[in-house]
Amino acid sequence: MKFIHVSIITIGDELLIGQVTDTNSAWMAQALNQAGIAVSRRVAVGDDRESILKAVDEEMAAADIVLVTGGLGPTADDITKPLLCEYFGGRLVLDEGVLTHVKYLFDNVYRRPMSARNETQALVPDTCTVLHNAEGTAPGMWFEKNGRILVSMPGVPFEMKALMRTTVIPRLRERYMLPAIAHRTLLTAGIGESDLADRIQLFETALPAHIKLAYLPHYGMVRLRLSASGFDEAALAAEMDQQFAALQQQVADVLVTTRDESMQEAVARLLLEQNASMGTAESCTGGYIAHLITSMPGSSRYYKGSVVSYANEVKTGLLQVSPETLRLYGAVSEETVRQMAQGVLDHLHTDYALATSGIMGPDGGTPEKPVGTVWIAAGSRAGISTIRLKLRFDRARNIELAAFNALNFLRKCISEQSFSPTANSRA
Amino acid sequence: MKFIHVSIITIGDELLIGQVTDTNSAWMAQALNQAGIAVSRRVAVGDDRESILKAVDEEMAAADIVLVTGGLGPTADDITKPLLCEYFGGRLVLDEGVLTHVKYLFDNVYRRPMSARNETQALVPDTCTVLHNAEGTAPGMWFEKNGRILVSMPGVPFEMKALMRTTVIPRLRERYMLPAIAHRTLLTAGIGESDLADRIQLFETALPAHIKLAYLPHYGMVRLRLSASGFDEAALAAEMDQQFAALQQQVADVLVTTRDESMQEAVARLLLEQNASMGTAESCTGGYIAHLITSMPGSSRYYKGSVVSYANEVKTGLLQVSPETLRLYGAVSEETVRQMAQGVLDHLHTDYALATSGIMGPDGGTPEKPVGTVWIAAGSRAGISTIRLKLRFDRARNIELAAFNALNFLRKCISEQSFSPTANSRA
Repeated sequence: MKFIHVSIITIGDELLIGQVTDTNSAWMAQALNQAGIAVSRRVAVGDDRESILKAVDEEMAAADIVLVTGGLGPTADDITKPLLCEYFGGRLVLDEGVLTHVKYLFDNVYRRPMSARNETQALVPDTCTVLHNAEGTAPGMWFEKNGRILVSMPGVPFEMKALMRTTVIPRLRERYMLPAIAHRTLLTAGIGESDLADRIQLFETALPAHIKLAYLPHYGMVRLRLSASGFDEAALAAEMDQQFAALQQQVADVLVTTRDESMQEAVARLLLEQNASMGTAESCTGGYIAHLITSMPGSSRYYKGSVVSYANEVKTGLLQVSPETLRLYGAVSEETVRQMAQGVLDHLHTDYALATSGIMGPDGGTPEKPVGTVWIAAGSRAGISTIRLKLRFDRARNIELAAFNALNFLRKCISEQSFSPTANSRA
Repeated sequence: MKFIHVSIITIGDELLIGQVTDTNSAWMAQALNQAGIAVSRRVAVGDDRESILKAVDEEMAAADIVLVTGGLGPTADDITKPLLCEYFGGRLVLDEGVLTHVKYLFDNVYRRPMSARNETQALVPDTCTVLHNAEGTAPGMWFEKNGRILVSMPGVPFEMKALMRTTVIPRLRERYMLPAIAHRTLLTAGIGESDLADRIQLFETALPAHIKLAYLPHYGMVRLRLSASGFDEAALAAEMDQQFAALQQQVADVLVTTRDESMQEAVARLLLEQNASMGTAESCTGGYIAHLITSMPGSSRYYKGSVVSYANEVKTGLLQVSPETLRLYGAVSEETVRQMAQGVLDHLHTDYALATSGIMGPDGGTPEKPVGTVWIAAGSRAGISTIRLKLRFDRARNIELAAFNALNFLRKCISEQSFSPTANSRA
């Protein structure tokens, strides 16, 4: 069994000064893994001839397949195409197919005049196979040298993704006898990474050598992933299923989901199974829970909406939180968050409600309610349950953790039907 | 002037199967740049002895400073520390300072018993300088070899960030005579990358060789960045200011901001200058605009909240959109989005309102209103203006583009005070 080494090179000064986060590499790695192609290395370099050449040279020496994104736009800081032309020999020629496509895009999609600069997108090295980029003007380019493959793609995420899906991955699968790669993933909540490791130590040491276990911290939760590859796909799947079942038993009490799904997908699945609806009232999470839910296609089937009640007058006005409650207990309190959830049930007419109120920092804390204090309420017609969090991170991370903990609390309350008919407090 | 080469190595299988996006590298690059240290390369490898060794070896050969994150957690898939110990010679010894700190964290912060596994966090190579990690259990480690520096840090973002800020960057600045790095950034909207390049071609070709111009596409807008480095900080700043002023003149009509700030920060600044408030009504953006705004510390000074009106009954109930309007024109229409904005002004009692309604895909489009159709309304007591977008991307990107275009529309309406007292339509 030959192991195929894949390197990803991303090009762009913006990656090295940090103005842009490289999401392309992560997406590519995921798509390649699902297709049975493991990535060995990722390298990012600037828009600089020498750095690009060094990276191409080194990765072509170490890997069987080198995937390159970026450096192909129509502006002057792009130098990748001439460099690849030189590296693989040959010269730049006009590709009529690409030119026709670029003209089509300007005439029919962008609906603006095409400049001379855009015409240069149709110049390609005569040593490459041109890959059609349906979504944009810069074509993909497939080079081969000494039995190794380099594919150059634009850095615009949706253009790269379409090229990978429709052309690059199918061509790579055709070319190599690829081993199947199997992953099994589960998500836990409410237990730390090292406690989890202690608990499953015997399971982990008993794993056969070709199955790897990884701990992936994930918004205050821990994802556990089993990975293995092999040519007998059925045998591999059976073995993985068996190990995965054993792992599930060990973590049953802290298990969120055994699917490779997000927390919000797990909640959505529960709601769809019950044909139930939900709504949210968000103070400290400021719409982030709504965003997580509405980012999923089809969320309108179970999600009615949110009142982001940042100001107290929105809490009293739209959610009917009593001004007396706000005065007596404050906005960040069990009493307020309980009334916010009730307001969702009453005014958004949903089966379930989720509400958050807290202090995310950096300012706004007091000795009694320090930064990181969050109250969460999950409600149904049967009652409202609450929980308090004490977070200790920066604002961005506190918002994320509050949102994911809130969704997990609602998920547990729904699946256990543990909505409390009377006031309670679990801190 | 010696140019210092910095490489960043991130370690973790999760980076190569794409379950995690590498945000650490981007943050580190940004922090280093601000400190006058340019990053030359970034490499990501898996939790695999050979790959880590190869990366450390190669980057130590090519760079003056190698910054490593990840691979230091308390679980069994971590192999980086023993490897570094071997690479730099020496043996693992117990560091009493680290042990005391780990014990402190378990006793006072995590408030749970410390396992034997966590004690191994206090084992460090006797060839390194231990860097105090105030935020977590895995210490930073500073190695030197042949005049080159390698710093190993945990992969947990907030631990790494604190270590970089408080210890690593100050130590690096002390060690090297660092050149100043100057950036000037502006954000444009409403003009494509290649049109922009055509427009500023003369400016670009006339730039001195040591000043670089980069085009950074950014949610359908384009950021332009001038960069240069030099030891005479005052002269560099004066030269950059002059070039930046010239660049601003060329793009005055499409300029969003000349600060290195986000769209939401530009809107926030306008509101604070006027001591004005705003609120949102979000259908298709589903809370994302609220999230963008509330992610900023202090946003409660100008932001009152949002009604995420995903279901029509929330539009009619909380925002008082007329059922007749919904029936006649549909939820995605100029009439509806106008009433949503009016609902915000009336019921959230804000000075300004922003409303969105659209079809984000992949489903829900019709021949008259295809996927990507978005109506946006910006309102004040003076009137309500609307705009229609036709987006053509996937759901996630459509939501982002709709949100940023909506914020830009509100920004323009506020700064030009161009709220229309009568119905209008700019498509």
